Amino acid sequence: MYKIVLMRHGESTWNLDNRFTGWTDVDLTEKGVAEARQAGKLLKDAGFTFDLAYTSVLKRAIRTLWGTLDEMDLMWLPVQHDWRLNERHYGALQGLNKAETAAKYGDEQVLVWRRSYDTPPNPLDENDERTSFNDPRYAGLQRAQIPLTECLKDTVARVVPAWDDSIAPAIRAGKRIIVSAHGNSLRALIKMLDGISDDAIVNLNIPNGQPLVYELDADLKPIKSYYLGDQEAIAAALAAVASQGKSK
Amino acid sequence: MYKIVLMRHGESTWNLDNRFTGWTDVDLTEKGVAEARQAGKLLKDAGFTFDLAYTSVLKRAIRTLWGTLDEMDLMWLPVQHDWRLNERHYGALQGLNKAETAAKYGDEQVLVWRRSYDTPPNPLDENDERTSFNDPRYAGLQRAQIPLTECLKDTVARVVPAWDDSIAPAIRAGKRIIVSAHGNSLRALIKMLDGISDDAIVNLNIPNGQPLVYELDADLKPIKSYYLGDQEAIAAALAAVASQGKSK
Repeated sequence: MYKIVLMRHGESTWNLDNRFTGWTDVDLTEKGVAEARQAGKLLKDAGFTFDLAYTSVLKRAIRTLWGTLDEMDLMWLPVQHDWRLNERHYGALQGLNKAETAAKYGDEQVLVWRRSYDTPPNPLDENDERTSFNDPRYAGLQRAQIPLTECLKDTVARVVPAWDDSIAPAIRAGKRIIVSAHGNSLRALIKMLDGISDDAIVNLNIPNGQPLVYELDADLKPIKSYYLGDQEAIAAALAAVASQGKSK
Repeated sequence: MYKIVLMRHGESTWNLDNRFTGWTDVDLTEKGVAEARQAGKLLKDAGFTFDLAYTSVLKRAIRTLWGTLDEMDLMWLPVQHDWRLNERHYGALQGLNKAETAAKYGDEQVLVWRRSYDTPPNPLDENDERTSFNDPRYAGLQRAQIPLTECLKDTVARVVPAWDDSIAPAIRAGKRIIVSAHGNSLRALIKMLDGISDDAIVNLNIPNGQPLVYELDADLKPIKSYYLGDQEAIAAALAAVASQGKSK
């Protein structure tokens, strides 16, 4: 039997501003940094340790990982940065306030953009300064691999290969793994692991900075999964995530 | 032509306590963290960027790297943690105060232990709790690879292979590299790069947290090398390092 720990980054400045973030490289708030350290403390107290960490190339996930590893005295751990674990690209919505967008277009349209499995928001224009074409962290990619928008289906299509060709082989090799990533890249992993339907996955919420443990069988199929820590705090964090797209 | 940046970690708590540190995993002081960020600022202002970072498995070097990369907006950079870049192992001296040790054994004996090229301090006893045998970061090593003491010659013997089989091939592949390491692992690299004699290398001092740039030719031979930043501050930092082993 294997165990893997999944964790969404701590609170970011744009979680706080209630903005669509996507591939925008915003930082953690002080609360987010504290959540990362608290996650490390929970993991250490529960007897977890790791051999390898995965994260995205976005600093809110990396700083969350740093805080967790620091608290666990595992700063020396090998870390794989994989762009395929990035948040879903939010297209032309990146940078817009969620409540203002909802007030303008209606809660229903925003909910479609946020939660439709296969309807992406409008893409960024290729000349928009918000595109990632000139960002050095994506310099090794072909231009067609760098999205201008994504629906969750698109995110699943890049996250699952990261699992198949990198994370799963490492688990099978006996590595104890932590993944620090994002709401939608983790939805993609969980959809695959638990076999969740396209309709149901968009309603799955993942709280910031809470270690989510998956126990896997020899075929890497989930036996059970659970959040570490104070279950009431987790329920409150889940409710907060669920209400982010509302206009008021 | 290639460029590589070498950097000794910022001030550590045992630099401040004037203790022999070696493989003991002490942290940075606040000043050390500030030095790391200042190094990142210097590098960014001088137009440097990197494709790959190397560091040891000791947190004072890793946290220095983190501060530098954070300031340069390069938190996503791939990082290789290599135990072979660790500080020289200080044997039975690890944890002892340098001035107290000098007062007890004499400045001359301490200078031999600190600065002889091929005379190691007494080894740790195999049962000493200060050994690294049970430390998970060395779990992949054979027991004979984990030192109980080292002279600088021993450190050179493990650092040079890290250069030959990992760093040099990456430079030749066009990667722009920063190495965050330790006084003696950097002495080992510099000895090899500049062809410094066994006698002369022990008197080469390297200040904490100052980026040292090497410009290399196609054969990776140095064309020139220089510290970035305020040259007076670097001279003062060098003088401080040189005086650490004195009893008063």
